[in-house]
Amino acid sequence: MPTWKLTLAYEGTGFCGWQRQPQQRTVQGALEAAWREVTDEQPQVTAASRTDSGVHAEGQVVALVTEASLDAADVRGALNAKLPEDAAVVAVEAAPDNFHATHDSIGKRYRYRVYNARVRPVAERRFVWHVPQPLDEAAMHRAGQALVGRHDFASFESAGSERESTVRTIRAVEVTRSGEEVSIEVEGDGFLYNMVRIIAGTLVEAGRGLREESWVAEALAACDRRAAGQTAPPQGLCLLRVFY
Amino acid sequence: MPTWKLTLAYEGTGFCGWQRQPQQRTVQGALEAAWREVTDEQPQVTAASRTDSGVHAEGQVVALVTEASLDAADVRGALNAKLPEDAAVVAVEAAPDNFHATHDSIGKRYRYRVYNARVRPVAERRFVWHVPQPLDEAAMHRAGQALVGRHDFASFESAGSERESTVRTIRAVEVTRSGEEVSIEVEGDGFLYNMVRIIAGTLVEAGRGLREESWVAEALAACDRRAAGQTAPPQGLCLLRVFY
Repeated sequence: MPTWKLTLAYEGTGFCGWQRQPQQRTVQGALEAAWREVTDEQPQVTAASRTDSGVHAEGQVVALVTEASLDAADVRGALNAKLPEDAAVVAVEAAPDNFHATHDSIGKRYRYRVYNARVRPVAERRFVWHVPQPLDEAAMHRAGQALVGRHDFASFESAGSERESTVRTIRAVEVTRSGEEVSIEVEGDGFLYNMVRIIAGTLVEAGRGLREESWVAEALAACDRRAAGQTAPPQGLCLLRVFY
Repeated sequence: MPTWKLTLAYEGTGFCGWQRQPQQRTVQGALEAAWREVTDEQPQVTAASRTDSGVHAEGQVVALVTEASLDAADVRGALNAKLPEDAAVVAVEAAPDNFHATHDSIGKRYRYRVYNARVRPVAERRFVWHVPQPLDEAAMHRAGQALVGRHDFASFESAGSERESTVRTIRAVEVTRSGEEVSIEVEGDGFLYNMVRIIAGTLVEAGRGLREESWVAEALAACDRRAAGQTAPPQGLCLLRVFY
């Protein structure tokens, strides 16, 4: 059966996350419903990342296994005609039969956006965390470098996960400012539950000067969730890209 | 009575424009309601621009005349606490008693955002006009220079206006691209009804290659609305700044 690799963009605001749930509007549910409208077939769908409620994506990757015979341009056009306005298929490629969007991924890149001005954001409000206190983005960047490399990230995982290992490799933590916006981009081979949001919450504490920059390394070494900062709210987070 | 000069940002999506209307959610209505919650007083409010339904603002200027004695920081804080999330007061200054937001303005700057990619925008959809056909932004910029200067802009005004003169001075038309987005910024001493949206619709026709660049000058010279391009949709437009 043909397998399609779909690249999906969505605004998380109106979705209860990626994963299909009864009685909830989810991205997976919307994608499957769109596909059924096109083909009358219930597809098998797996995503690289099960994004949480409110979290956005520019480059979620989804494997869609189907019996329908369509070409790539038809798949994209038909799905975009049926998907709601807060989700769109950006690209479609044929994938090998055994392609698995989750297991075959060798890395992901996320961006967390902080809006750093006294007055709350208006146009950007669905996509940022508003932090009114001044942030030192250079201090945040320096502090974040302690996370780069292969480490046990147990301090940066919310409870309730079933993963066996909390060891991950972070390839880059990049904190930059453009006007009122501080952007935290994190790339790694894999991420624990809420990991990027806890990294963002922790770096913001360092950026506000509430903590020394060296505290981020200490929080990592503690291997204890209570040692790190708060979990930043979901709407600042966006899945930018998945690597294969 | 004290007069405050307020700088207001809002997302136009959920508002039926600036001007108060019975049974409609408008920015003026929301601002007046917020002020009544703060002071129990119905304020006199005038805006630099009566933006249409769906049009956004980063720097709308409003004169608010009040009997209440508050300082500037209190005015801003109190209004922002009461305004809905799609509007915020960015700045507050004391203004002379006779300050009039509309009549005292010596110019305005607008931005019109076009999203130019085949797949429709998701995160940006409330703030852009989606044009899927390729646009030549350099051609649009060159064509737009015909509008700079003092001209009769009768071709660039929608019917239904009561203005006496259609002569205005445009100081700058700047068309630039950043990735998938083509931005058209227009600055002038004053604008006719729908003028920036008609300019955007006209420049997009030139940018698609449907018209010669020289057609924009011909459309201007015709002094006839039918000679110019379509009125671009409201959600691409944003009032950036008002000059005094």
